[in-house]
Amino acid sequence: MAKATAGPEIERLIQLLARLPGLGPRSARRAALHLIKKRDQLMTPLAGALQIATEKVVVCRNCGNIDTMNPCAVCSDPKRDPSVIVVVGDVADLWALERASVLNARYHVLGGTLSPLDGVGPQDLAIDTLVARAQEPEVKEIVLALNATVDGQTTAHYITDLLHDANVSVTRLAHGVPVGGELDYLDEGTLSQALRSRTPM
Amino acid sequence: MAKATAGPEIERLIQLLARLPGLGPRSARRAALHLIKKRDQLMTPLAGALQIATEKVVVCRNCGNIDTMNPCAVCSDPKRDPSVIVVVGDVADLWALERASVLNARYHVLGGTLSPLDGVGPQDLAIDTLVARAQEPEVKEIVLALNATVDGQTTAHYITDLLHDANVSVTRLAHGVPVGGELDYLDEGTLSQALRSRTPM
Repeated sequence: MAKATAGPEIERLIQLLARLPGLGPRSARRAALHLIKKRDQLMTPLAGALQIATEKVVVCRNCGNIDTMNPCAVCSDPKRDPSVIVVVGDVADLWALERASVLNARYHVLGGTLSPLDGVGPQDLAIDTLVARAQEPEVKEIVLALNATVDGQTTAHYITDLLHDANVSVTRLAHGVPVGGELDYLDEGTLSQALRSRTPM
Repeated sequence: MAKATAGPEIERLIQLLARLPGLGPRSARRAALHLIKKRDQLMTPLAGALQIATEKVVVCRNCGNIDTMNPCAVCSDPKRDPSVIVVVGDVADLWALERASVLNARYHVLGGTLSPLDGVGPQDLAIDTLVARAQEPEVKEIVLALNATVDGQTTAHYITDLLHDANVSVTRLAHGVPVGGELDYLDEGTLSQALRSRTPM
């Protein structure tokens, strides 16, 4: 900003808000104004929530999920099927799958995907701990729920190779037409996968 | 959300972030994860900045600007021209004009625009204090820098009528082609205003 129009405390707030994903400089200013206008309803509670999260949030030592307990609520849940581990790239993917709430399984968060171009190798991801968990006698299936991108699929193949000698079946998410998707807007890769994986009515 | 996937502290943080303008539920989750991952670089400083803003930010008793001093830095600045008052609807508009930094004037924030449909009348805006400021002997010009919307222009006409007997000239922002704008994408109203207000090369 060329000129400090508000006090340094407000400028600092705007700069920090602008570092959130989804907020640019302009929307960070709007957010700061909104916070200042809603001081009691929003700004004070948000300051408190951030302070509490700063103090309490930990990474689950078992699966890499983020929670305020360790092991996390998912790993500690006795109703979860211990025979299935769903492998995801990021905690956001874990949350997305939990919202779909299909599998009552546990998770393993890799912390990213292999990406030679970005210098992300196997040692940067939680792959060795996954291989260790796959050796546990109760584990029967590893579901690779990774992005359908080049990096995601590279990671899936790498893990499949590593788990070749482990006594588990390795599966991946189905490819196909998204629910509500229109064929006309889908790419050829998705359409050809959906055709090849066609199922009886 | 159908299912609490993270702890209640994280859910609360996500809910508060989702109330910021520009962030929906999905981007609030992304923002919360980003904050948790950048705990020391971002989450702790943001909690502190919000706390400081909660304590220090005040509304300027003179012009309605938001600052940590009262009167605000603009009103207290002895280098500002005291003969011109720029009337804006909101603090965000004041900041936008300060970034343009053309006029070295002082401001008056109305706190909105007249909107009969939304039940916003003159008593809801800082119009009486504007009329009082316009009577001050040093004030020569009132620039109405209001949105070029129906509500903004209604407000501009209402204020112009009120200031009819005050010894000030009342001006408004020019209409015309935005800098960098392509004619093909402009509405007829803007084009006709730009043609009528054409200036010599």
